[in-house]
Amino acid sequence: MLNQTLTERLRSIVGDRYYRDDKEALVAHSYDGTPMLQSLPDGVIYPENTTQVSEIMKVLAEHRVPVVSRGSGSNLCGGTVPVQGGVVMVMHRMNRLLEIDMDNLTATVQPGMITAEFIAQIEAQGLFYPPDPSSMRISTIGGNIAECSGGLRGLKYGTTKDYVIGLEAVLANGEIIRTGGKLMKDVAGYDLTKLLVGSEGTLAIITEATLKLIPPPATKKTMLAMYKDLYCAARTVSKIIEAKIIPATLEFMDNPTIRVVDDFAKLGLPRDMEAVLLIEQDGDPATVERDIARIREICELEQADRVEVAETREQAEKLLTARRSAFTALARLRPTTILEDATVPRSRIADMVLRINEIALKHGVTIATFGHAGDGNLHPTATTDARDKEEVHRVEMAFEEIFEAAIELGGTITGEHGVGLVKAPFLEWKIGKAGIEVMKSIKVAFDPHNLLNPGKMFAKETRKRVVIDHG
Amino acid sequence: MLNQTLTERLRSIVGDRYYRDDKEALVAHSYDGTPMLQSLPDGVIYPENTTQVSEIMKVLAEHRVPVVSRGSGSNLCGGTVPVQGGVVMVMHRMNRLLEIDMDNLTATVQPGMITAEFIAQIEAQGLFYPPDPSSMRISTIGGNIAECSGGLRGLKYGTTKDYVIGLEAVLANGEIIRTGGKLMKDVAGYDLTKLLVGSEGTLAIITEATLKLIPPPATKKTMLAMYKDLYCAARTVSKIIEAKIIPATLEFMDNPTIRVVDDFAKLGLPRDMEAVLLIEQDGDPATVERDIARIREICELEQADRVEVAETREQAEKLLTARRSAFTALARLRPTTILEDATVPRSRIADMVLRINEIALKHGVTIATFGHAGDGNLHPTATTDARDKEEVHRVEMAFEEIFEAAIELGGTITGEHGVGLVKAPFLEWKIGKAGIEVMKSIKVAFDPHNLLNPGKMFAKETRKRVVIDHG
Repeated sequence: MLNQTLTERLRSIVGDRYYRDDKEALVAHSYDGTPMLQSLPDGVIYPENTTQVSEIMKVLAEHRVPVVSRGSGSNLCGGTVPVQGGVVMVMHRMNRLLEIDMDNLTATVQPGMITAEFIAQIEAQGLFYPPDPSSMRISTIGGNIAECSGGLRGLKYGTTKDYVIGLEAVLANGEIIRTGGKLMKDVAGYDLTKLLVGSEGTLAIITEATLKLIPPPATKKTMLAMYKDLYCAARTVSKIIEAKIIPATLEFMDNPTIRVVDDFAKLGLPRDMEAVLLIEQDGDPATVERDIARIREICELEQADRVEVAETREQAEKLLTARRSAFTALARLRPTTILEDATVPRSRIADMVLRINEIALKHGVTIATFGHAGDGNLHPTATTDARDKEEVHRVEMAFEEIFEAAIELGGTITGEHGVGLVKAPFLEWKIGKAGIEVMKSIKVAFDPHNLLNPGKMFAKETRKRVVIDHG
Repeated sequence: MLNQTLTERLRSIVGDRYYRDDKEALVAHSYDGTPMLQSLPDGVIYPENTTQVSEIMKVLAEHRVPVVSRGSGSNLCGGTVPVQGGVVMVMHRMNRLLEIDMDNLTATVQPGMITAEFIAQIEAQGLFYPPDPSSMRISTIGGNIAECSGGLRGLKYGTTKDYVIGLEAVLANGEIIRTGGKLMKDVAGYDLTKLLVGSEGTLAIITEATLKLIPPPATKKTMLAMYKDLYCAARTVSKIIEAKIIPATLEFMDNPTIRVVDDFAKLGLPRDMEAVLLIEQDGDPATVERDIARIREICELEQADRVEVAETREQAEKLLTARRSAFTALARLRPTTILEDATVPRSRIADMVLRINEIALKHGVTIATFGHAGDGNLHPTATTDARDKEEVHRVEMAFEEIFEAAIELGGTITGEHGVGLVKAPFLEWKIGKAGIEVMKSIKVAFDPHNLLNPGKMFAKETRKRVVIDHG
């Protein structure tokens, strides 16, 4: 609990109603979407505007109180667990779409807006904002920016980073900065915009974002390719890219995922298949027809057992819904679900899937794998039970080996979920000792007293096994 | 001149031939593409590989000697003038294309490779690397990365930043870091890749880059829209974007530019027109036909006097060559050419062109304007004579007002040329005092002894007139 002087100052900024330190509020903000992590904050604050955020930060900086800014807390890396206590700043009151600029094709939005609501409003104007994390019905735009969220359309359209062109943010000392703008080009100094995207709340608190919008594709087609051999499915991914086709979506589900998704969503998915690829192409009708035909050929060459192109938009939506429900469906199996996102160059997808299965077998754990195969971004997902310490330990060992395998294959420890608490011990494996030092020095430059989301990204100790010598 | 011990150590790293401090070498590396700036270095070094760069940096760091890394020095912001002496590190020996990875659609290249040669090799493999700065026949990939170069295709395809997905770089202390990789997604820590792109040699020395390639468009069409009214031409730009068409290229030239380009390239351009738009669309044939037809309609609605679609590839190339030769053609008019790149939201192009002309008139200077109108990125270009101090002073006053106007219109002081020496006094106008402080602290984090390209980006003093309160 913070001392009374401090809480009174905070209450005077936001009003009594919007600073809470009752048990209910503290417990509700002690965890996020990541299993098995919990830590109570000292207080929860709900600012209404940028000025309040700035004033709050000045007070907290003066008293050296840590702050964790968050939206819905749907992240999967422990990114918003207040591990060092302090204040959780919830951005949900700052949830307005400030402007859609039809002349410049930009939107300006507050961080607390729910992603799906934002997308709905953009689409109502006949425009397109591609980033679509699976969590988008609960996640916020601010959270997406903090984590650099990806989604099913990342392959062709990129991730959140590619659409953030301007930010307003409050620094650790309460100062307000504005980066970028409604500008397609801006090289005035270091690119603070892209640096803040994906910085996980450790460098500044985002209070407003200007996002690039694009014209929507005229049409799209969705298909499902089904394989008895998992390796053939994974190899199809590489072959499509090699053929210089970049589909809008190129998703992978293995057999365990197919089965639980079908149990959950009753879609009549092919339960006997080892793997399916969900493929979408969008664009002008002629392009889409041609690409889908070529993709079908490639799938068949790679020994797909069946290839089905959705006849109607409803059928297509069903298939997408199936993929989007993978996490939820897997989460019903056992009490604890641990979803990871090791990522490899897309040519190494097949090798990575095989490695995941070998590793799961070796440690006697259940790992289903699905994900954004076209990006090389897989989600090996373990179903376990947090109460069974011994099994959880084996799951952890397995994931450690999965990260190691990803690095060996030229990949990374996280493609779209972020480092947070969970991946911090592995960050050095990806970026080396010199890289860690540079990142830490950037952190100190922004936040010399380590008040912004402390304890994240940088671990006290790196796991010993360092695979690649980055020197 | 550096002391003998130090030069001997440098020579022992690269060999006698590749460290020079004769007058010819020093003078040749005392200036870059920017007029009226010159400063002699103490030595010039030509490393052959990353290990040498690392060893050189260790020696220079120990002796606290500044270093300016450069490619061809074609930048227009004084970015590679060694204003504090020290060593100029020329990257031309590190000029190999290390790999084109057809499975992942990436290329790995050394920084000293000439951009146009790189593009030619990529295109020979049936792939596409969009960034095409006008300097590409002499500029290097490393220089493009340091400045985040744009070009004629930026509107639809983005700039250099959008294609750099991995870097190897040497830090001020000689340590080597590797960021990103052949990965379409990577959120392992802060995005050092995007931070280094456009950092103008002030944070690290880039020694290798992994670039994203994309499938080339199937076809393209080129058209010229000619206007008797400059405002109508500029307004057409906004109207095309509002119609949700993103052309591959959307370039603007005003009457003075048209005339000098025609004198230079003898293309039969319409010398009586106030402005022309050079427009390209690429993609599938049906899309291109439809977009070009709609763009033609918009041009005509906005009172274009004539609209001509190139019938052949040769005709189209001629038009593009005309645009690309604008700088060279203007440079023939008078001894000194100052090319700027104030950038505004694309909806403000018309206002910006009018403001530039008013400002030129007010100061009695000659400014021709052309540029990447679709990006809002204009190149107002003054032709003057460096020996006429009084006139040069008026040109400087005019550009100061042009930067101010760009900021007022929601724009920036530089869209693609960088800050360097020339824009440093204006950087605070764009990013505010707090923004400058953050950027300076990042600089210190990477380069505590201010050895990497010192004197750039941050001016001793900001020009007083600060238009917008960023607080």
